[in-house]
Amino acid sequence: MAKKQKHALGVTRAEDYSKWYLEVVKMADLAENSPVRGCMTIKPWGLGIWENIKTEFDKRFKEKGVQNAYFPLLIPLEYMQKEAEHVDGFAMESAIVTHSRLEKNEDGKLVPAGKLEEPFLIRPTSEMVIGEAFSRWINSYRDLPLCINQWANVMRWEKRTRPFLRTSEFLWQEGHTCHATAECADSYARQMLEVYTDVNRDLMAIPSIPGKKTESEKFPGAETTYTFETMTQELKALQAGTSHFLGQNFSKSLDITFQSEEGKEEHVWTTSWGVSTRQIGGLIATHSDDDGLVLPPRVAPSHIVIIPMLKNKDKADDVLAYCEELKKELNEQAYFGRAIDVVLDKSDSNSRSWDWVRKGIPLRLEIGAKELEQNTVFMGRRDKDAKDKQAIDRNEFVSTAKAILDDIHNNLLAKAESLLNDNIKVIDTKEEFYKFFAKDEDGAQAPGFALTHWNGDAELEAQIKADLGVTTRCMPFTEEGKEGKCAFTGEHSKQRVIFAKAY
Amino acid sequence: MAKKQKHALGVTRAEDYSKWYLEVVKMADLAENSPVRGCMTIKPWGLGIWENIKTEFDKRFKEKGVQNAYFPLLIPLEYMQKEAEHVDGFAMESAIVTHSRLEKNEDGKLVPAGKLEEPFLIRPTSEMVIGEAFSRWINSYRDLPLCINQWANVMRWEKRTRPFLRTSEFLWQEGHTCHATAECADSYARQMLEVYTDVNRDLMAIPSIPGKKTESEKFPGAETTYTFETMTQELKALQAGTSHFLGQNFSKSLDITFQSEEGKEEHVWTTSWGVSTRQIGGLIATHSDDDGLVLPPRVAPSHIVIIPMLKNKDKADDVLAYCEELKKELNEQAYFGRAIDVVLDKSDSNSRSWDWVRKGIPLRLEIGAKELEQNTVFMGRRDKDAKDKQAIDRNEFVSTAKAILDDIHNNLLAKAESLLNDNIKVIDTKEEFYKFFAKDEDGAQAPGFALTHWNGDAELEAQIKADLGVTTRCMPFTEEGKEGKCAFTGEHSKQRVIFAKAY
Repeated sequence: MAKKQKHALGVTRAEDYSKWYLEVVKMADLAENSPVRGCMTIKPWGLGIWENIKTEFDKRFKEKGVQNAYFPLLIPLEYMQKEAEHVDGFAMESAIVTHSRLEKNEDGKLVPAGKLEEPFLIRPTSEMVIGEAFSRWINSYRDLPLCINQWANVMRWEKRTRPFLRTSEFLWQEGHTCHATAECADSYARQMLEVYTDVNRDLMAIPSIPGKKTESEKFPGAETTYTFETMTQELKALQAGTSHFLGQNFSKSLDITFQSEEGKEEHVWTTSWGVSTRQIGGLIATHSDDDGLVLPPRVAPSHIVIIPMLKNKDKADDVLAYCEELKKELNEQAYFGRAIDVVLDKSDSNSRSWDWVRKGIPLRLEIGAKELEQNTVFMGRRDKDAKDKQAIDRNEFVSTAKAILDDIHNNLLAKAESLLNDNIKVIDTKEEFYKFFAKDEDGAQAPGFALTHWNGDAELEAQIKADLGVTTRCMPFTEEGKEGKCAFTGEHSKQRVIFAKAY
Repeated sequence: MAKKQKHALGVTRAEDYSKWYLEVVKMADLAENSPVRGCMTIKPWGLGIWENIKTEFDKRFKEKGVQNAYFPLLIPLEYMQKEAEHVDGFAMESAIVTHSRLEKNEDGKLVPAGKLEEPFLIRPTSEMVIGEAFSRWINSYRDLPLCINQWANVMRWEKRTRPFLRTSEFLWQEGHTCHATAECADSYARQMLEVYTDVNRDLMAIPSIPGKKTESEKFPGAETTYTFETMTQELKALQAGTSHFLGQNFSKSLDITFQSEEGKEEHVWTTSWGVSTRQIGGLIATHSDDDGLVLPPRVAPSHIVIIPMLKNKDKADDVLAYCEELKKELNEQAYFGRAIDVVLDKSDSNSRSWDWVRKGIPLRLEIGAKELEQNTVFMGRRDKDAKDKQAIDRNEFVSTAKAILDDIHNNLLAKAESLLNDNIKVIDTKEEFYKFFAKDEDGAQAPGFALTHWNGDAELEAQIKADLGVTTRCMPFTEEGKEGKCAFTGEHSKQRVIFAKAY
């Protein structure tokens, strides 16, 4: 890890990981707290990241036959009544709308009025509403598969919040699909997990471990919950998104049926899957350093900042023209599906270069009279030490800009893969397991992931959680079918499982 | 207008315009009513239109230096207290959140619990919240102009709703900008109006009359409200969007100040501007006919449907292969910034062709054994009568597809321009004015727009509204400076004004 730089953040990861995270968000100008408990305002640089994430997912969803729709923000209370299992979960912590207008009281103060006969809640998920629509939209096997996605805001009051990682309101997508057979639905849920892991790797340079959740960790009502777990720099597991095969549980409770090719009335098989603005939290946790945010190029709102050095007044116009022309030539190139985005920062701040380091922009080009004269650019890369800059021939830079961006992406991915791979430990005994997780048990830093055989017993799982604060994160696909002996009981184990402290 | 077709809608425009509108929405599968009062579910074909509208606006906003951000859904009540002028308007009809969780009562019924100390309202607009952020974000002239836009859902309980045209929840964008001078702000508000009219014309083939609102019709608190009015087929005016120059009214009430280049503390000059899913209502009202929805190609979710005729089982595989290859070649071409989108409708419904007419798809290609043999496509265009189809050489079609789409766009635009131009009447006397608007006064059909000199008196304006249900819609830019005599009083008039019945 780089030595602390003069202009870097006020705190390092080693000093206080939690404070460091908040400082990265603040100094990169990603988001700020709002006057509403636990809700954040997402500022342009933060929302620009989300727009890139959304665009890439949306494209890949559509390649899988998904269509977008939009359902109402408010949900009648009676809908929640239907699905008791759900309501015992997050839906209980909802924002409840009880009145339909404001009135001024005698003191001129605004007060709620127009009490609604039936209250509504702001959607914590749209599952029930979408399911109700499906029950009307689907008649025959010809209507299947039906693959619907919604991009929307949702609310769940949270007690302890952190920008992007856990907020009361967040932006997300929720996919809901119906299929004629169990095989089709299960295969679709797996395909969507693959879309998630692909986009995390290809766009955000985030490696992850895909697999299944254990019985106790899966979504209530799901037959199978597929998950992909990423590793933060404090070596904790972050659940970045999940995809559920729901069997017929959901279609039975909402009576979503279809007439099969043979003319029989059957319940459909469903899936649901979602990722949220939490992905930005994962991005920060994976790549950022003690200088601030680090953005993999493909997800960065802007790829390159040009910083003209205009102190030499005689040369200022020429330097600016040189920068403008450079920007134009770069803009004409497409990188990963969009034009290379270049910011020309003409502000007169002395801290411009450091400001952009903290914002995580992949490439910084400082250009003054010297560069103009030598026909070069003075380049800093965000994947290298902030002081490690180099002069490059200007035309060479233009013709290799895309390759340099790819190189940064690959470096960041390789670094994150090393972190992940170096911190998964195969552990075969209870003693070693307890010793592994006992380290730093109160600190923010965790010891890493344990890959351990376990007999599948939920009570044992609960005991480990109670003892160490460690949970089963996923049963990796790569371990499927590799049987062994439970490290805790010596009993049969179907496969090794990832245990870790979770964010 | 085309004669009523066998498979067309159940009602014509002439029979019942309002019913016809609902029938278009239903038969094109654009949206449906939801269980929440006045809120609709936007189905994939409807949301696909909105996504295209959004993409085009977003691109053009960004070209004007706009950055997107996202602000919380909920607004503390105290924020509304600040701006009394606002609160007397639409904000009074808000959805009020008073509780933070659900609880099961003795009967097992879910009831609101966790009463909030201070209630929130669901944003009817984010103006106050964004303004409060601006007051913190802006310090010096270097921070200006600050141009922020938000794409979001908003809520205002509406009593009489209509899909897209007026719903309690709707999707919109709200732009809010701050400038150092009145001139910059006013010019920016005008530029955004131009973006609106350009996108309406270029993307949606909707002509409009841009201009200013009169004092009584402008947004409360605005110095100038710029508007663009479109004409529905019932010859009513539809306000499709507005752009406001707010002067310093807003910045003074929220104390948004900056230090000028001369070191003085000054209030910023602001604008705000918005369009919503109402644009889809305008699209329907402008182009659709007695056969259903008509979509201008650039805004259509899909451009072309290929309908394979597979009754001849011997030829079915070959016909399908021919269709697949055709689809592939069309997909490879870009039209107005995106790949030509082709649906291959393999369903076995007999009404496929009519289904797609009603959905408004620009081009329908019917392909069977005959077309395969002759290497042709049998093409129907949505801007022509549904029965008016023609055989075209297959390769010629592929090479001219984009030109055909452009031709449809131009035809629809020309038709809408004719409707608009043919139904604006220059009226110079009170008698003629009252006679003009007395026609069909209770019917859905209106007589058109009157372009009339008026002395600018609000009382006279109110009298006309009371007498005829007719309002001033806009003071067209094209009439600016063309003085005359008021048709009602003979007094001086600064310019002619559009009077009309409004949707």
